[in-house]
Amino acid sequence: MVRVEGGVTAPKGFLAAGVRCAIKEQGKDLALVVSQTPAVCAAMFTTNAFKAAPVLLSMKHAASGNPVRAIVANSGSANACTGEQGARDAERMAAIAAEALNVESEQVIVCSTGVIGHFLPMGKIETGIKQASEVLSREGGTDAAQAIMTTDKCAKVAAYEFEIGGVPVRIGGIAKGSGMICPNLATMFCFLTTDVSIEPALLRECLQLSAEISFNSLTVDGDTSTNDSVVLLANGMAGNARIDSEGDDLEAFQEALDTVAIDLAKAIARDGEGATKLVEIVVQNAPSYSDAKLIAQTVANSPLVKTAIFGQDPNWGRVLAAAGRSGATIEPNKVDLFLGDTKIVEKGEPLRISEAVARAPMLEQELVVTLDLNAGDESARVFTCDFSYDYVKINAEYHT
Amino acid sequence: MVRVEGGVTAPKGFLAAGVRCAIKEQGKDLALVVSQTPAVCAAMFTTNAFKAAPVLLSMKHAASGNPVRAIVANSGSANACTGEQGARDAERMAAIAAEALNVESEQVIVCSTGVIGHFLPMGKIETGIKQASEVLSREGGTDAAQAIMTTDKCAKVAAYEFEIGGVPVRIGGIAKGSGMICPNLATMFCFLTTDVSIEPALLRECLQLSAEISFNSLTVDGDTSTNDSVVLLANGMAGNARIDSEGDDLEAFQEALDTVAIDLAKAIARDGEGATKLVEIVVQNAPSYSDAKLIAQTVANSPLVKTAIFGQDPNWGRVLAAAGRSGATIEPNKVDLFLGDTKIVEKGEPLRISEAVARAPMLEQELVVTLDLNAGDESARVFTCDFSYDYVKINAEYHT
Repeated sequence: MVRVEGGVTAPKGFLAAGVRCAIKEQGKDLALVVSQTPAVCAAMFTTNAFKAAPVLLSMKHAASGNPVRAIVANSGSANACTGEQGARDAERMAAIAAEALNVESEQVIVCSTGVIGHFLPMGKIETGIKQASEVLSREGGTDAAQAIMTTDKCAKVAAYEFEIGGVPVRIGGIAKGSGMICPNLATMFCFLTTDVSIEPALLRECLQLSAEISFNSLTVDGDTSTNDSVVLLANGMAGNARIDSEGDDLEAFQEALDTVAIDLAKAIARDGEGATKLVEIVVQNAPSYSDAKLIAQTVANSPLVKTAIFGQDPNWGRVLAAAGRSGATIEPNKVDLFLGDTKIVEKGEPLRISEAVARAPMLEQELVVTLDLNAGDESARVFTCDFSYDYVKINAEYHT
Repeated sequence: MVRVEGGVTAPKGFLAAGVRCAIKEQGKDLALVVSQTPAVCAAMFTTNAFKAAPVLLSMKHAASGNPVRAIVANSGSANACTGEQGARDAERMAAIAAEALNVESEQVIVCSTGVIGHFLPMGKIETGIKQASEVLSREGGTDAAQAIMTTDKCAKVAAYEFEIGGVPVRIGGIAKGSGMICPNLATMFCFLTTDVSIEPALLRECLQLSAEISFNSLTVDGDTSTNDSVVLLANGMAGNARIDSEGDDLEAFQEALDTVAIDLAKAIARDGEGATKLVEIVVQNAPSYSDAKLIAQTVANSPLVKTAIFGQDPNWGRVLAAAGRSGATIEPNKVDLFLGDTKIVEKGEPLRISEAVARAPMLEQELVVTLDLNAGDESARVFTCDFSYDYVKINAEYHT
């Protein structure tokens, strides 16, 4: 498996574009990702009760089993909490894209991100879609990644090439997300493409498994948005023997999909609003996966843990306190805690370690915090970031 | 019911003191609250799996049914995650207080707050307890309140006088807490005293009811500490006819206890780390109390909601998004949302209100955010505060 350039346009038969239609104050804000042939679609959407209009529409389009030809996405306005007009606007956005691309409306997935509660500027959206459809290209993956950014500081792009039965195939992806990010999908888009030929049911299973250990193991601030969408299109243009059962081919595909998804999830955590560090919370030797995940999530979401990491302060007591309030099964006197590779707590009691030694791993750009429960053999990992002045600044000043 | 001065020393037969024994860098850090006669004790402690040594000891002392004579508390070090030595230190702290006060060790409740994972400086603790026992007084309530402060900016004191069967009685309290505060008890102490004569079982029920709508409806940052303790001592010295059954007397007592507890809970929220506003999240007309409480807690803990409130930004979409991810039952198209008295959202859709009108309630020192689910008749209220630069500053720099 080798890393390649191009993101969503790395696999064969995918075109993309990102243009500015002036919904945001500056920068590109309208993206198109198009498959030249009908693609099998697997998709996952926010679990938030207040689902945005484009999410409700795209759930229908993705669930229909119909092949999908395109994803149209805008940044700057989320079209969430916008009632019937919002629903009409989302449908109109699909229809405009369908007309520009000469496909059916039902073959278009629609995604919007940005401020909640504003109506979409449909004139701008229409202009942007037409403009984007005219500049679609095999090199447009990064432009599309830029056009879905909101408070993101950088575009998130990944792609890998590997082989299925001796045939070179690719998976690529772009993502956005920086705040309002929590498991069960974040204010987060991830658009994935592949030229692999694979059965729809297997594609959906693979996406669910990858999402669990990437986007659903990712938190910036514990807030799950109204608009989260992960969409995977597979157009089969690589020409591999169709993957239609378990075996080496499916495993190779899963591994590559996991790699792309985790790359993008880590890119989102690293670019978390105001983040200065990428942080991984690892819980190992837990009695169950759900206990491990719950503890890792609770630690990853603790403002006290996150501010301590920002302060480069080895305040491990906050990690134990967060683990202890998670509701998961813990035997305090069995727990070991590591900052980086340094063991700080053994069987629930602090080792006598100098401040400087404990602090050393906190000074790095990436920090792994490991809790070993010594109470089973399940483990989980959650990606997050620290919590800085800039998180407050960004979120106190964003919007209105 | 009238408000009176004195906190824990307002009721008859209670003495208190707060002194400095130099555990913290500055300020008083050792408190004693003493009943002149044996008192009935009701108490609640943290639900965190990592319970601090003093919590484990005090749970035993409070559960024994024995009368209690004193509470001894220190700030500056939490004696949490300190293993067997921590347990011995907590027992020693009770024994020192018992000896100084000429009571039994089992009659002493022990509480510690501060940094996790450090051992108590027992020499200083011993000196402090002896010193405090020599200056116990009827005017010592505020000194005791000061001696339990950590990152608190102000001492939290409340007391009320009312009548039971024509006899004047009092309930008083002191509290501490500013961060690591979340339902199921916060990094929070509340010591309550009353001279009412009441059956132990009724006293415990009253405390649970009061705690549910005060300390367990309070969150600063979603973190539940290892040391939370709420202790209520009733010494019967007012001379009222003992409350031993339901009726007007019990109701009057409950109402007064609720008032003291809510006063102190609001004082904690108002003094939340870095807080600039006291915020109440009210959820009404919910299908169940648990749904209402879950939504109110989720909104109150949302960093995006809290930073928007700090920014005085009427970003109501974040309130709906937090409610929507809470996991509670919500029908989005029935929900009304108010900022202060201003209705912003009706049946899930934004009303066309000017920015200035929506923003007006955000400019006040106290903000009430109300979600009306129009789907039942249960309601809940959670107290919290906003999330500012200073929260990050305080928590990135505290400790080590």
